[in-house]
Amino acid sequence: MKNEKKALEEFFQIQHVDEMEPFFMNIVSGTDLWTFMSSNGGITAGRRSADWALFPYETDDRVTASAENTGSKTLIRRNGYHHCWEPFSIRSEAQFNIVRNLYKNRIGNSVIFEEINNDWQLAFRWQWTPGDRFGFQRKATLTNLGTETISLEVLDGLQNIMPCGVPSGLQQASSNLVNAYKETQLEPQTGMGMFSLSAIIIDRAEPSEALRCNVAWQVGLDNPTHLLSSAQVPAFRKGLPLKEETLVKGECGAYLLGTSMTLQAEEKKTWTIVADVMKDQTEVVALREMQKHISMQTALDEDLKNATALLVQLVAQADGIQTTSDKARTARHFSNTMFNIMRGGIPMNTPTPENPLPLGFSRRHGDPTRPWNKFNINTTDPVTGKPVLDYEGNWRDLFQNWEALAVSYPTLLKPMTDKFLSCSTADGYNPYRVTKAGFDWETVDPSDPWSYIGYWGDHQIIYLLRLMEAEEAHTPGEIAARLDIPAYPFANVPYRIKTYHEILQNPKDTIRFDASLNNQIKKEMAVKGIDAALLKGTDGKTIKVSLLEKLLVSLLAKLSNFIPDGGIWMNTQRPEWNDANNALVGGGLSVVTLCYLHRALVFYRNIVAASPTATFTLSREVSTWMDCTKDALALTSTQEVMNALGEAATTYRQKIYTQSFCEGNIQVQREDVLSFLTAALSPVERSIRANRRDDGLYHSYNILELSKGRFAGIRTLPEMLEGQVAVLSSGVLSPKEALAVLDTLRTSRLYREDQQSYMLYPNKELPGFLEKNCLPGDALDRSALLKKMIKEGDKRLVSQDVCGKLHFNGTFRNAADLATAMKNIDVTEDEQNVLLDLFEETFDHKAFTGRSGTFYAYEGLGSIYWHMVSKLVVATQECYFQALDSNAPETEALAKHYHAILEGTGIHKDARQYGAFSTDAYSHTPWGKGVRQPGMTGQVKEDILTRFGELGVRIKDGKVTFSPTLLRDDEYLPDGTLTFSYCGAQITYHRGKGEGITLSEADSARLFARQMTELEINV
Amino acid sequence: MKNEKKALEEFFQIQHVDEMEPFFMNIVSGTDLWTFMSSNGGITAGRRSADWALFPYETDDRVTASAENTGSKTLIRRNGYHHCWEPFSIRSEAQFNIVRNLYKNRIGNSVIFEEINNDWQLAFRWQWTPGDRFGFQRKATLTNLGTETISLEVLDGLQNIMPCGVPSGLQQASSNLVNAYKETQLEPQTGMGMFSLSAIIIDRAEPSEALRCNVAWQVGLDNPTHLLSSAQVPAFRKGLPLKEETLVKGECGAYLLGTSMTLQAEEKKTWTIVADVMKDQTEVVALREMQKHISMQTALDEDLKNATALLVQLVAQADGIQTTSDKARTARHFSNTMFNIMRGGIPMNTPTPENPLPLGFSRRHGDPTRPWNKFNINTTDPVTGKPVLDYEGNWRDLFQNWEALAVSYPTLLKPMTDKFLSCSTADGYNPYRVTKAGFDWETVDPSDPWSYIGYWGDHQIIYLLRLMEAEEAHTPGEIAARLDIPAYPFANVPYRIKTYHEILQNPKDTIRFDASLNNQIKKEMAVKGIDAALLKGTDGKTIKVSLLEKLLVSLLAKLSNFIPDGGIWMNTQRPEWNDANNALVGGGLSVVTLCYLHRALVFYRNIVAASPTATFTLSREVSTWMDCTKDALALTSTQEVMNALGEAATTYRQKIYTQSFCEGNIQVQREDVLSFLTAALSPVERSIRANRRDDGLYHSYNILELSKGRFAGIRTLPEMLEGQVAVLSSGVLSPKEALAVLDTLRTSRLYREDQQSYMLYPNKELPGFLEKNCLPGDALDRSALLKKMIKEGDKRLVSQDVCGKLHFNGTFRNAADLATAMKNIDVTEDEQNVLLDLFEETFDHKAFTGRSGTFYAYEGLGSIYWHMVSKLVVATQECYFQALDSNAPETEALAKHYHAILEGTGIHKDARQYGAFSTDAYSHTPWGKGVRQPGMTGQVKEDILTRFGELGVRIKDGKVTFSPTLLRDDEYLPDGTLTFSYCGAQITYHRGKGEGITLSEADSARLFARQMTELEINV
Repeated sequence: MKNEKKALEEFFQIQHVDEMEPFFMNIVSGTDLWTFMSSNGGITAGRRSADWALFPYETDDRVTASAENTGSKTLIRRNGYHHCWEPFSIRSEAQFNIVRNLYKNRIGNSVIFEEINNDWQLAFRWQWTPGDRFGFQRKATLTNLGTETISLEVLDGLQNIMPCGVPSGLQQASSNLVNAYKETQLEPQTGMGMFSLSAIIIDRAEPSEALRCNVAWQVGLDNPTHLLSSAQVPAFRKGLPLKEETLVKGECGAYLLGTSMTLQAEEKKTWTIVADVMKDQTEVVALREMQKHISMQTALDEDLKNATALLVQLVAQADGIQTTSDKARTARHFSNTMFNIMRGGIPMNTPTPENPLPLGFSRRHGDPTRPWNKFNINTTDPVTGKPVLDYEGNWRDLFQNWEALAVSYPTLLKPMTDKFLSCSTADGYNPYRVTKAGFDWETVDPSDPWSYIGYWGDHQIIYLLRLMEAEEAHTPGEIAARLDIPAYPFANVPYRIKTYHEILQNPKDTIRFDASLNNQIKKEMAVKGIDAALLKGTDGKTIKVSLLEKLLVSLLAKLSNFIPDGGIWMNTQRPEWNDANNALVGGGLSVVTLCYLHRALVFYRNIVAASPTATFTLSREVSTWMDCTKDALALTSTQEVMNALGEAATTYRQKIYTQSFCEGNIQVQREDVLSFLTAALSPVERSIRANRRDDGLYHSYNILELSKGRFAGIRTLPEMLEGQVAVLSSGVLSPKEALAVLDTLRTSRLYREDQQSYMLYPNKELPGFLEKNCLPGDALDRSALLKKMIKEGDKRLVSQDVCGKLHFNGTFRNAADLATAMKNIDVTEDEQNVLLDLFEETFDHKAFTGRSGTFYAYEGLGSIYWHMVSKLVVATQECYFQALDSNAPETEALAKHYHAILEGTGIHKDARQYGAFSTDAYSHTPWGKGVRQPGMTGQVKEDILTRFGELGVRIKDGKVTFSPTLLRDDEYLPDGTLTFSYCGAQITYHRGKGEGITLSEADSARLFARQMTELEINV
Repeated sequence: MKNEKKALEEFFQIQHVDEMEPFFMNIVSGTDLWTFMSSNGGITAGRRSADWALFPYETDDRVTASAENTGSKTLIRRNGYHHCWEPFSIRSEAQFNIVRNLYKNRIGNSVIFEEINNDWQLAFRWQWTPGDRFGFQRKATLTNLGTETISLEVLDGLQNIMPCGVPSGLQQASSNLVNAYKETQLEPQTGMGMFSLSAIIIDRAEPSEALRCNVAWQVGLDNPTHLLSSAQVPAFRKGLPLKEETLVKGECGAYLLGTSMTLQAEEKKTWTIVADVMKDQTEVVALREMQKHISMQTALDEDLKNATALLVQLVAQADGIQTTSDKARTARHFSNTMFNIMRGGIPMNTPTPENPLPLGFSRRHGDPTRPWNKFNINTTDPVTGKPVLDYEGNWRDLFQNWEALAVSYPTLLKPMTDKFLSCSTADGYNPYRVTKAGFDWETVDPSDPWSYIGYWGDHQIIYLLRLMEAEEAHTPGEIAARLDIPAYPFANVPYRIKTYHEILQNPKDTIRFDASLNNQIKKEMAVKGIDAALLKGTDGKTIKVSLLEKLLVSLLAKLSNFIPDGGIWMNTQRPEWNDANNALVGGGLSVVTLCYLHRALVFYRNIVAASPTATFTLSREVSTWMDCTKDALALTSTQEVMNALGEAATTYRQKIYTQSFCEGNIQVQREDVLSFLTAALSPVERSIRANRRDDGLYHSYNILELSKGRFAGIRTLPEMLEGQVAVLSSGVLSPKEALAVLDTLRTSRLYREDQQSYMLYPNKELPGFLEKNCLPGDALDRSALLKKMIKEGDKRLVSQDVCGKLHFNGTFRNAADLATAMKNIDVTEDEQNVLLDLFEETFDHKAFTGRSGTFYAYEGLGSIYWHMVSKLVVATQECYFQALDSNAPETEALAKHYHAILEGTGIHKDARQYGAFSTDAYSHTPWGKGVRQPGMTGQVKEDILTRFGELGVRIKDGKVTFSPTLLRDDEYLPDGTLTFSYCGAQITYHRGKGEGITLSEADSARLFARQMTELEINV
């Protein structure tokens, strides 16, 4: 695989990059250096988090807008010419005949900006690459492309270098205050720039020393003039001489080097500026002395070599390296793997009983395109500099990335599911965030209007299920064998789900936050760690229950919200899947969860059936809940089923909320459990089938209509992509039915021809500003109060425009605002109802789905959300294999769909169509724009899964089979081979020489344990 | 004064404005429109607050940096030419021979940007003026300066127009998210642009309609092509045709008009773009219909006329209009008056008993140069559109602006002092903010690390005193007459000052925040209003005390912290004057307050002596405190005095904190009060004199040295400007002594030659990064622990650099961090002390004064803080009048100083020296830079006071004298007259015709009551 590693050094190119809309890139290092760049040259970079920035951490639009003032800056004056050439600056665009190109290497850790000045026959390039020891390297190359000798004055370097110690929020809201504290000094012996604060910025009247600085220095230019600010840039532009700057106070820092150079024909000059953050005096002195005594160029080259090797090694461990003739595809797989382990982590050590998941490289995610997420790269100890093992993330993120990681580390599947199950609550949900130490939950902060709580029920069933399915495939019987072992605690999240009766009254406000319990837990956690957040029994000891009980509780929690033919009622204040339809909370019924529940019930039934024991120990409370649920599902009317399920869950919850588990254990027969699972399965399947639309697609979400706390019907919503993915994954459809769904999907309103892919829901036009907020024409007839108020010119509720139309007060945002306003002016109850009806008629808020109807990027109107598309790829591949295994006639047609959807994800798209280098995954593509949000999308996990499926790696009954039936022939190299890494082994396929193989159970186990290094397979 | 009103329309010009550093301007309207502009064209504007912005509200550096993308944008293509001319854009700078000029009118509500393209012989101007009815008007004028007919393609308009409904914090931190919600539509009938959100941006899953929009429309161009985004700007630049945009989603809004025009020689074309915010459907329809039916140009002209007239009228009412030959001076006075009433407000109605201060136009201050302040202009009701009477501000701001307002409205002096006294606490301090409804205080918010509490003791004595002195001068005897009337409540601020003993232990942590009392008061306030925050007696009724008791309590509070020869100990957690020396809190002794206390004691002694009654009713608690204080002041040693004062105050506070006032009242003889005041006066005066430095200046602040809770000496600090101002104001100095101070000041290190003015303290160089944090050379000898840790490579406390020097861990900010780190690694107490000593030796934090030593703008190193300079002007004028009245030989020399210092404030400075239009006051001038922070500085209040003094308006014994001895001769108009407004009357001076006059008491009273309209005076 050495050649491939070398090939990773190759660069992809986008010519005339300035003809595209600027796009954003996420440049990665093997340690804690982070960089985000815009294709116009804008940059933000730093270490660890946004608070340790070399260039200001701003949202992507601002990074792009700051290109003139931040990051790389070069001014080139040619002797005898009046104009000044400034590569990538808008100042130069109209003055020269220029070409701008962009390059990114296959590893994804190096980007080159290139501008060719055809008038002067000069090319200037700068290349950004993160090292590790020395930080960021920015190498400049100036080449004389012509045949004349050229004499030049050059001012080159970095602008707007941050001092050390500025939190990103302070910089964003108060950059002018930060500027007042900036102190930039030249280290006179070496010409190194030191960027510090005169003091750490605090409001308290106490000393607050700033004892660390950011640094910049250079190699390659002899005795340049050093500038520490941009103050002299205008003077240089005019041809005035530069004056060395040694101390600049109260201004933005810069590190600019002025020099003269003469370039012979075809000669090129190269120099490197190095910049790093968070250096204390000891480190700066070390750097100074080193610069005085050794060849820094060699050390810099070494650092880049090591940094790149480290990153490649991490990705290689996670099987990111493949060699096929499709370089775009293998580069994307490399990148997918890299982004997958960035979020989920990768084992750094051998697992031990104390640390069964010794992951590192994981990080809390976030980037400048999504300001609500704050990334944090905890890979090294800031004091000792030693590697840190840590992981942290929203639970759905961590577990999704772990699923892909488990392809390469299947022995981690058990500790992963253990972690999953140890975080779930006794009422059947999962807390918000998982950390190495345990878990964390959202809290209510009265001073933060954005704070909110709830259970993000999404993926809860499917993500756990997929990990378990994988474990069962790799090590059959092991799950069944531990079903009855009491090993799992419950998370004691201080949320209290209200009673069924209360939920019916207001299904959007269903959880009480127990602030005092929260405080008590957090206080105890400071001393005892996560143990303080685990549920205790009446004896004060941490409760541990069996795997079966854990699984049952999560199934029962979902089933307790089952609405026959409707779906799973989403009433835990947070949306089911991501935020697209966040307003469905309360009223929404998830068919999606129903589909995954089906798959889970089937799987768990098989596991239970395979259990070596005939009885199981369950808490009596759970057993009762199970029995009641089973009975409830046998009832006939929807209202009866709802009531019985809701009451059973309420009874259970009230017991555990008030007394924890106190009823003791009970032995339950296997047959009883199986009978419960079977009893659940049939209404679930029936309900899925009931959600088939006339066009052959399936509903994704429905709306539960309630009237005075009683079931009043199910309302459907327009088609969505998610439901198709779910039904294809549910195990309900035959290959024929699956194919029908995929065929219909291609001709549906969800398909976007320009990107050959699928939106989450059909694009639609919102009403124009003057079309919305218009009351029905008969409003005045219906409300005497309105008539009176309009007559009196009282605009507090409604105003009438000069053309006679009525509009609600422009300060109202929803019916609650109207209600408050009416309360303030003593409107009668009857009139209140009339006005609230008018409001609902005007806005139709009952059908409000949330973000999917309110904005134009991310999961918004017209956007393609790539993670969901890649889930469709996964589901299609599953259907393909199902068809293949059953020799169904739809097999080839499903394969065709698979490849078509996969192509739509953009691997082979032209940069102009894709909107960026297509070797990187991006989160979404808004209507009419290029891709957005680089790298850390859930898509990478799905693409890793399907890639191994495509390579024909399938695991079943503890054995791995290599049989690449989906693989495109043209991926083979000219010699008929291709190689890829799997469980750390290099697998080589020899095409046309055989039929693939299935390894023995023993060999498979060796492979899963990463004890094989190579495998040659004839396929 | 009509001519003068006309003259206000005149414009001041700055030629070649692009050769100056960009500077910032505050453009004012008579209602709620706000605009801040950078001289490079950058702009932010809106109504009411930063949350209702037309262009994004950002800090000034960002407004300047956004000029290319935000606000006015013009592209001009000339037929037959390749290049595109973009006035004020960096794109055009090198392409054409251009001149850029800037104009601002005398009123200060209109700014013109002008670029002359000498190559094409074209001039383009755009002018920003806020109207009221229609919002912001931006008038464009394109003039053919040449003799040829020119054909042009023009794209002109506004970029980055905000949608309605985006809070400024959201925009600053998450502009890319905001972009995703943007919806811009063209109103097809009129070509009006409507800028709205698709939904109000919230995280909750609830409908949130955005029912208001911002609008932009135009008058003057026939059938232009409308663009609603900047997307086609690059195409226009290349000469491609434009395509009308009718709906743009998910992008920054713009309002750009494409048109062709032909300009004959010397012909000019004019058009106007109008933009406004917060329009609902009813208002937009009204605007649409109006545009269809009437001549909008006439309506626009009318609106500007009215808006300007309103602003001028407001300023005129506050005597802002003067006519002299010095237009810069009178323009600055106009501007000073305008900014003074913007903060303090101006009477809008006749005072009534219910509303004795019917002020409007006041606002909470703030601007883009100080992101920590959030302005709020509550002048009109957003629903009804009717004027609102309101005022709000930090108490020191409001009362300072009121002092200047009272020059024109002297009848408001009593209600002003009443307001002041009704806000002070029983322990003798003032809450943070004053509102029309009452007052407000800072609270501790555990989730906000910036939240903090304390009493800002600064100005407490002097601001009240100055209001009282003014009242006594206007209506002698009235204060004395109400000394014994129980009319004043105490604010029950939930702060509890600790005991003297506790304060000695930690003088930086001296106030307990009573969170539960705070909650209780706030809860009650929601129902009962401010009454809930007033101190109640044991009977539950609001306590009311006499004026004398109020005054005594505030004097006693200060005296309780009197340190003989040292000053007033600042131990209420907040600094005395502004934040410059904020870290003096706890250790600092204010000589400044001592000076003002002296002046106050003298004044109050006179008032008490003049009282018509011989006895006063005091609360027994206060009487006891007074007696104890008097006794304490008679003690000899500093320690004894401190102890006795501190214990007396503690006893008093403990009583009122625990039982409120419960000891009943006592009758106190006038002589006893006088004897107390006299007893206080003499040590105060002695201490002031003790603070004379050898160079003749006076100390401003000293440091109290404590050792184990005992007095251990007084340490002096370098010279500061504030102490000189205070001693000149104290009434202690003779004219001769005052002159000596001013002479010395001019030759001191405080003087900045380049600005002919004074810094707050001498500029100094901070140690360089590698010079700081170096432990003493013998550190290893002193600490065995350090030696051991260094040997073991343990860097948790100290690291050693390769050159052998030792440095504390770079994460430490102060000794507390070191202490925490030592605690974590179990360092012995002895070693702890050694290391803490080493830390103090390394950083000398005992002498840490706070911001004055930590940053480079605002009140920082090298800055001139103009408010303090203008206080020096006030003090100098007072000394001049004192000398004049006593025929002292120093009179002329003092007058000379007065004029020199006044000139230094910049009225007549060249724009390049000043850094902006010198007709506006700015807050400060950092070293080597231009002025910063336009308009709303306390300076304006001082300058108003001295201006009337300079005009010879002096009030004494109820009579006003007009005798302009300080006025410069060259201010008279050629006809020997000048006019100014005073108490609403037009005063005309006829020079050389007389000696001025003193009006009779009756005439004076008529004038004070604003019942005179004109007065001709021979001077």
